[in-house]
Amino acid sequence: MNNVRAVALGGGHGLHATLSAVRRVTPDVTAVVTVADDGGSSGRLRRELGLLPPGDLRQAFAAFAAEDGGTLWAEVFQHRFGGDGALAGHAVGNLLLAGLFEVLGDPVAALDEACRLMGVSGRVLPMSPEPLEIEGLVSGLDSEDPAALRTIRGQVAVATTPGQVRRVSLRSSGRPGRPPLACDEAVEAVLNADVVFLGPGSWFTSVLPHLLVPGLRDALVRTTATKVLVLNLVPQPGETAGFSPERHLDVLFEHAPDLRVDAVIADRDSVPDPANLRRAAERLGGRAHLGAVADPVVAGRHDPDALARTMREALGLGRDGEHGGGAEGREGQ
Amino acid sequence: MNNVRAVALGGGHGLHATLSAVRRVTPDVTAVVTVADDGGSSGRLRRELGLLPPGDLRQAFAAFAAEDGGTLWAEVFQHRFGGDGALAGHAVGNLLLAGLFEVLGDPVAALDEACRLMGVSGRVLPMSPEPLEIEGLVSGLDSEDPAALRTIRGQVAVATTPGQVRRVSLRSSGRPGRPPLACDEAVEAVLNADVVFLGPGSWFTSVLPHLLVPGLRDALVRTTATKVLVLNLVPQPGETAGFSPERHLDVLFEHAPDLRVDAVIADRDSVPDPANLRRAAERLGGRAHLGAVADPVVAGRHDPDALARTMREALGLGRDGEHGGGAEGREGQ
Repeated sequence: MNNVRAVALGGGHGLHATLSAVRRVTPDVTAVVTVADDGGSSGRLRRELGLLPPGDLRQAFAAFAAEDGGTLWAEVFQHRFGGDGALAGHAVGNLLLAGLFEVLGDPVAALDEACRLMGVSGRVLPMSPEPLEIEGLVSGLDSEDPAALRTIRGQVAVATTPGQVRRVSLRSSGRPGRPPLACDEAVEAVLNADVVFLGPGSWFTSVLPHLLVPGLRDALVRTTATKVLVLNLVPQPGETAGFSPERHLDVLFEHAPDLRVDAVIADRDSVPDPANLRRAAERLGGRAHLGAVADPVVAGRHDPDALARTMREALGLGRDGEHGGGAEGREGQ
Repeated sequence: MNNVRAVALGGGHGLHATLSAVRRVTPDVTAVVTVADDGGSSGRLRRELGLLPPGDLRQAFAAFAAEDGGTLWAEVFQHRFGGDGALAGHAVGNLLLAGLFEVLGDPVAALDEACRLMGVSGRVLPMSPEPLEIEGLVSGLDSEDPAALRTIRGQVAVATTPGQVRRVSLRSSGRPGRPPLACDEAVEAVLNADVVFLGPGSWFTSVLPHLLVPGLRDALVRTTATKVLVLNLVPQPGETAGFSPERHLDVLFEHAPDLRVDAVIADRDSVPDPANLRRAAERLGGRAHLGAVADPVVAGRHDPDALARTMREALGLGRDGEHGGGAEGREGQ
């Protein structure tokens, strides 16, 4: 089992959930992280210094560090300055990553150094070596013509729009009009992986962006890795309000029609119509795997052990002794 | 030689010079650093977060790291953000130390962690666990009455006053009216040292402050360590403009009448009247050691190798083969 090379693509809390679970399946995990954030501490650093927004990258380190038992540096990384001054809200790890980016001039070298500092065995890579900007095509913003489409710019704006996101695209923020560059090391990691995980997370702003970087999408299409899509437990207020599980899959297909997936993992209790999800998964080339993957205590959060069990099942890696949900899940398809 | 336990007290560039030289004499060096800075990045952090000003502490790390061959983290520590935004001018190491101070709640533990991060073998301690404020009694500010004394507050104000500093004192900035606390570990280091170095540096704002923390001054008076005073190469514009080498010693005596020193190191070419300096050193209980300790290329900077040679001579540790300046220095007395 220890030789399974896993890559997890995403951002924010969704990627944190995947990384926590995947680490229980294999120690060889590379996170490929969105770099389109323009809010909070990350957005301020990006605007002020012209660097990759570090927040989602920092969260990936935090997920790894938590699995490794945590370290002082993980705590320092996550620590945010308080008060109401110039530093208020900045995470120390964001500032440190910004310093490493500037000194080393290469985000991948900087992130590898941060891994060494924190003593984590995983690798954290940006999906692109340049800061990216999300644009959303949104309906429902115009009360006289609810079908009218408007373009909305920026991750925060798209994630919090009161309208309905129809489509997203990514732009290089430093090279207008050019398609976003892929991070070479991320492309390599996807091509050399045994298994690639996509999702859960904010669908339009943390999951789909990886498919909108041409080099990364090509790698996802070409790789021989088993591709596993992990669905959200609940629709995201704002960007995916009212979305069924199947609609999440359809949106993915609309944004990357040539992408096939081998497995779709969903929470048993979050799927109103399992047969329908099964058909949607088959249209993408894969099989649905329903498990009891939700945290029984904290609403909207995946349980890492349960998610890891369903991942093992979806990968045909056999069940461990405690596992029962997977079998029921399969029956439920 | 490897067992000589050295403590160097100071701040800023002066302390950097001492540390670079002392490291050539012994690997066991503890820096005890002023925490009264209120300017620049340090001053902003201190005001915004209520923490120890980290800048002088950071400089001590940089000196150690340079002697250890430098590391990436030393470079990151010293890196300053540019531009004109909220972070402009902040050194990454200052931000990281501030984060460590907040997370660990104990500056000494935080500084020991930073040592580990940077892989330096020395120790960096604050002279006090609390931020301190310098007050200067200054004459020459009143054109009608040049002898009139005014009180000036803050390190930057004292260091840059156009008047003449007559006396400085230190206040606890968090506990008004109380004498400044000494850092326990710094007191211990001084009591257990074989040799203690004071100076060079901004006399009123980096050197004398250590004598104004009662617990630290008592330790300096009581310790059985050899006490070595290192004089500046040139008077500091502002605070010590026009000061002779002897006047530096007199000012020290005025601020700490019970302190004796065993040796006074000065640059041969910076002492107009060696006999006079010898007498001044004797009044403090010690001997003057004149050497060619100035950097031959960069004006106003000590040459670490030459300073180390004169330190060895002053400590009776014998000369190395290249040493000639020390003997001439003694003759020059």
